[in-house]
Amino acid sequence: MDLNNRVAVVGAGLIGQAWALVFARAGCEVRLWDADVKALHKAEKLVDELAHSLQESGLVDDATALMRRVTRCDDLKDALESVNYVQESLPEVLSIKKDFYTRLDSLLPSTVVVGSSTSSIPASAFTEHLAHRERYLVAHPVNPPYLIPVVEVCGAPWTSTEAVKSCIELMRAVKQKPVHVRRELDGFILNRLQGALLREAFRLVEQGYVDIEGLDITIKEGLGLRWSFMGPFETIDLNAPGGISDYCDRYGGMYQTFAVDQGSTDAWSNELIERLHKARRELLPTVDLEDRRKWRDKRLMALAMHKKNLETDSLK
Amino acid sequence: MDLNNRVAVVGAGLIGQAWALVFARAGCEVRLWDADVKALHKAEKLVDELAHSLQESGLVDDATALMRRVTRCDDLKDALESVNYVQESLPEVLSIKKDFYTRLDSLLPSTVVVGSSTSSIPASAFTEHLAHRERYLVAHPVNPPYLIPVVEVCGAPWTSTEAVKSCIELMRAVKQKPVHVRRELDGFILNRLQGALLREAFRLVEQGYVDIEGLDITIKEGLGLRWSFMGPFETIDLNAPGGISDYCDRYGGMYQTFAVDQGSTDAWSNELIERLHKARRELLPTVDLEDRRKWRDKRLMALAMHKKNLETDSLK
Repeated sequence: MDLNNRVAVVGAGLIGQAWALVFARAGCEVRLWDADVKALHKAEKLVDELAHSLQESGLVDDATALMRRVTRCDDLKDALESVNYVQESLPEVLSIKKDFYTRLDSLLPSTVVVGSSTSSIPASAFTEHLAHRERYLVAHPVNPPYLIPVVEVCGAPWTSTEAVKSCIELMRAVKQKPVHVRRELDGFILNRLQGALLREAFRLVEQGYVDIEGLDITIKEGLGLRWSFMGPFETIDLNAPGGISDYCDRYGGMYQTFAVDQGSTDAWSNELIERLHKARRELLPTVDLEDRRKWRDKRLMALAMHKKNLETDSLK
Repeated sequence: MDLNNRVAVVGAGLIGQAWALVFARAGCEVRLWDADVKALHKAEKLVDELAHSLQESGLVDDATALMRRVTRCDDLKDALESVNYVQESLPEVLSIKKDFYTRLDSLLPSTVVVGSSTSSIPASAFTEHLAHRERYLVAHPVNPPYLIPVVEVCGAPWTSTEAVKSCIELMRAVKQKPVHVRRELDGFILNRLQGALLREAFRLVEQGYVDIEGLDITIKEGLGLRWSFMGPFETIDLNAPGGISDYCDRYGGMYQTFAVDQGSTDAWSNELIERLHKARRELLPTVDLEDRRKWRDKRLMALAMHKKNLETDSLK
């Protein structure tokens, strides 16, 4: 993958801005476009600010050089000229995506792969009617992708193996961590896993076993420490002398017992949601939410830097 | 809580050794006992080695001073003399616990609280028959507790509020993170949460949506990064403008949809376990499991140090 290659980032909201930064940080030439020219100009300024703030944390080497690789294009045709890849981050509205992809399909050479940032619409919902539908797929980031590297790559049934492979290679080349989602499913992988854990968390609080603060501590001072550098399969693989099958022999029965209690698919009740909301507001008043989000992003930066430093030594 | 107080650590296996280190690191005087005198002597040496290895990572200030606070007691009566708390880490065998607690109950003044490290037996199963049963509870650590600070504190129905409170205060004083589990349940909180996530992970791999490596990446390069410093409730509370109830309004419906697929309580099939085991062994041969466990512990140490450093600045 030649990183002097050119990519287009279409849609310059929060996610588009973050993508521009990810690609330019890795050395790509980025063409940034948005239908709203005013928003586009503002976005360019925001990417610049972001790049400089990441430089302070050590997560960007040279913000000024990075920004020289980002070109604002008021015209879509300009943005798409000679690009090797397009990352689309338009609003999550099916009709907007459909219209835009129809336009894109006629403007782009058939070999250019296009990834959508959508978190909720499968690629099959807006690419079926297109002449070159084999080159479209979802490349779903987690916000913000310059701090959280996983990208879920999921094609429609007609997406070609080459398109998937080329997107995965590009994502690796720009230091993201692509995960191939092999069949379309709502929520992809990450939100499904989050949903399974949340469901049990809601249930344990609802049934009075633990309060909301205790549950959060169990993750952030317990499981989350391991999971920040090992997935759940590697975790259990290391937790029995003979690896994962030994682990299942020893503890599988225990987990099946839990599952019987966990099997309920009832919706979260309004009473429970209200109770959780009240409990959270006692821990963190609404007026402080924004400051706490800034704290979170700084912690994520520090954690990304921590992981980056370890990659240079034997603890990779 | 006066940390010059004396605690007894009974049972000197891996968990007992780790507890001795946790208490002594915080300034407590530790009396270490095991029925097997040979194992006890070996354990003292291992705690010493551990303390020095943690000193190298910056997680212990002065290993030699720490070890001066650890006294090996060949006799149980000596170990229990003038202690304020007992941490029991005997084998996970009900009859062993029952016999030992009967003996303990007659030896200890009735005010001394006793916490069991058990991960699988509720306190009610081995304390019902005792004269002073109100002072017994479970204080379940995660291995190793000097790196993973969460401790699940769970009383039997007859455990006194004072005993629970005093154990929680002691755990906080020795820098662990106690979580009050308010009613007995198998697996307490942490393993229930792990089980819920594992169940969905097994399902997603079984149904061909993702492979074992992709699933692990989704956690360690995605959700796990946040969860290493924020629990799941704080995570979703920050992820919608109006906090957790706003988040449930926006995404609750999506998670309920997932739950229908996740509701199955079928056991993990042998075929699936075999497949997962094979996939893990391709990523990590059995012969390398032990080295990878050492790598894991070093990463945990580095992460603990990273979190410790942040606590001294504004990112606490």
